[in-house]
Amino acid sequence: MHAVLDSVGSPGLSTRLRAFLDDRAPETPCLVLDLEVVRTNYRAMRAALPEATIFYAVKANPAPELVRTLVHEGSSFDVASTGEIDLCLAQGADPSAISYGNPIKKARDIAYAYGRGVRRFTFDSEGDLANLAEHAPGSRVWCRFLVDAPASGTPFGAKFGCSPEMALRLLTKAADLGLAVDGACFHVGSQHTDPAAWTAGIAQAGRIAGGLADAGVPTRSLNLGGGFPASYREQAPPLTAHATAIRAAVAAHFDSPVELVVEPGRAIVATAGVIRTEVVLVSRKSDADEHRWVYLDIGRYSGLAETENEYIAYRLRTAHPAEPSGPVIIAGPTCDGDDVIYQNTPYRLPTALRAGDHVDILDAGAYTASYSSVSFNGFPPLPTLFVG
Amino acid sequence: MHAVLDSVGSPGLSTRLRAFLDDRAPETPCLVLDLEVVRTNYRAMRAALPEATIFYAVKANPAPELVRTLVHEGSSFDVASTGEIDLCLAQGADPSAISYGNPIKKARDIAYAYGRGVRRFTFDSEGDLANLAEHAPGSRVWCRFLVDAPASGTPFGAKFGCSPEMALRLLTKAADLGLAVDGACFHVGSQHTDPAAWTAGIAQAGRIAGGLADAGVPTRSLNLGGGFPASYREQAPPLTAHATAIRAAVAAHFDSPVELVVEPGRAIVATAGVIRTEVVLVSRKSDADEHRWVYLDIGRYSGLAETENEYIAYRLRTAHPAEPSGPVIIAGPTCDGDDVIYQNTPYRLPTALRAGDHVDILDAGAYTASYSSVSFNGFPPLPTLFVG
Repeated sequence: MHAVLDSVGSPGLSTRLRAFLDDRAPETPCLVLDLEVVRTNYRAMRAALPEATIFYAVKANPAPELVRTLVHEGSSFDVASTGEIDLCLAQGADPSAISYGNPIKKARDIAYAYGRGVRRFTFDSEGDLANLAEHAPGSRVWCRFLVDAPASGTPFGAKFGCSPEMALRLLTKAADLGLAVDGACFHVGSQHTDPAAWTAGIAQAGRIAGGLADAGVPTRSLNLGGGFPASYREQAPPLTAHATAIRAAVAAHFDSPVELVVEPGRAIVATAGVIRTEVVLVSRKSDADEHRWVYLDIGRYSGLAETENEYIAYRLRTAHPAEPSGPVIIAGPTCDGDDVIYQNTPYRLPTALRAGDHVDILDAGAYTASYSSVSFNGFPPLPTLFVG
Repeated sequence: MHAVLDSVGSPGLSTRLRAFLDDRAPETPCLVLDLEVVRTNYRAMRAALPEATIFYAVKANPAPELVRTLVHEGSSFDVASTGEIDLCLAQGADPSAISYGNPIKKARDIAYAYGRGVRRFTFDSEGDLANLAEHAPGSRVWCRFLVDAPASGTPFGAKFGCSPEMALRLLTKAADLGLAVDGACFHVGSQHTDPAAWTAGIAQAGRIAGGLADAGVPTRSLNLGGGFPASYREQAPPLTAHATAIRAAVAAHFDSPVELVVEPGRAIVATAGVIRTEVVLVSRKSDADEHRWVYLDIGRYSGLAETENEYIAYRLRTAHPAEPSGPVIIAGPTCDGDDVIYQNTPYRLPTALRAGDHVDILDAGAYTASYSSVSFNGFPPLPTLFVG
């Protein structure tokens, strides 16, 4: 009965998600997360890179139930704030399994983290390094450098990371300041589908490790960041392709064995979630308009933030037969002209689609609910429900 | 002691806001709203266009204290959702003073609004019109058409409004369906600094009114929407310039007297607010980098949503002397590469600026707090405090 649109060969909904939507008919909009898929994805990442320690990037989805699930799986956690530290600890994470990966932090937040037992930090600037030395003495540190690699699906630009030269200087200084130097880290940008991006970063990290060795500072680990992709409308390469590229690059650019760390977020949780929405309205702007406008009860301000610039093109699913279909512009429910989801990406939806019908947004477990605005236009934030 | 940067001749902070920040030293980040400035702005709008009824666009800032203040001033309210209807009623608004201005609404939300006594609605599509006829019988309606006018500071694109031809057809049909036709409405786009935009819309509305008259449907009112600008880094034209252009265009394009309605949001509340922030970090990406990166404890996901594409360039204020200064890129505190506030707009900040210093974001009362994400990266939403 349900037709999967824009399928690219990867499975649609898990049986559990499908049954939940059919049986429970939750109020829309809502995100439903299948925790069993989270476990499966976590184990797939572990299997693809057994030599790496996994720090789940909590920002991808900070739902407490999800964090607890990953605590039970043995995951470590990459956090962006003291709020995320408190969240992880409350769900049973050990402070030794938490890394404060945000290089932008207040001195008092470093002190707070240290007080809660956190002993791993990432920095990318002189100022943050000085604060770490003062407020988190003896902690293990990575310095994030700006990787020179092809852009990802949602590129970071230059916001994070310093030049490799500065990274070498600051890591050497970190050792002088009594911090426990782990080594370099980089992030290729979120939703990266080109394994060569990691190759470029690992080569640069290898040169930094060489410089550190010359200065008498051994490299303990290499933090490869996140960016491992999920499949949306376009199929992403399998994790194993990334793992192979990473393994080869580490062998080529590091003389001695080095511990690996990865910080996946999207790759763990994206495919575990579906957002159920309702069509608010289907309209045309003029009697001659070829496109229909399909307005959903979710938009950029209530969970679909990653559709900014149409970066992420989600697969959609309706209860109608896929054909006949026609071109649509898809928009959110607010009185905001920027709250348009897809107008350049060519989407088609069934001509039978009507107000009141459901549209399911697949693979929407990452970077959705926590972006929701508190009350923009008077709409409440996206709630999360759980199965599995 | 406080230097106002990027001043453009308009006043910086109100005395009350300045005193509040100095005396109370609130935790950052926070939005502080001066309700006395809200009253002043409301009265200025009334004085500029005494012939118009003012429907405050609640989405600009839905703080209950602010809505209550405007109820006491005698304002009416333009709402985008049932949530905003409940908010206005809870603050003492009369249902007859509420207009449900969002043309994208569920049938059951129309029924809910009608049940709460709302009798004014805007539509722009066949489907919404049918729902209004069924669930809000006899209500007063405007049909929004897509105005052909120069783009505004934050343009709406084509999301709202139908073609003028369709508007005429649908308004005629609305009368047939037993709805009380008010007439046409349009919106020039938010933060519009060119009074000629209204002129273009009024001319189109005049043609629609002519067509309606031919069909025996008198036009009762013309809804000019919002879009009245606030001054940010660039000084906006005074309200009186818009009023003059509107008055002349209505006289030119309407044969008989027509009630005017305006829906200002930004013009009422923007200058009433200041966001106090703290500098988290000042850094350079390499030892040779000319730009400093200044990271604040607020960003695009915690209130500064309108800095997307750097649409709105706020004035900034620090406690340091304005000179010497240097070029900066300004970014938010999250681990998100898109959370950069200004990298193309040339901002300069004092070279003395350090982590822990305050940066005040002026004229930030509109379209800020309610956009805040619930918890992105573990940061809480922007709180609002009140003076006056």
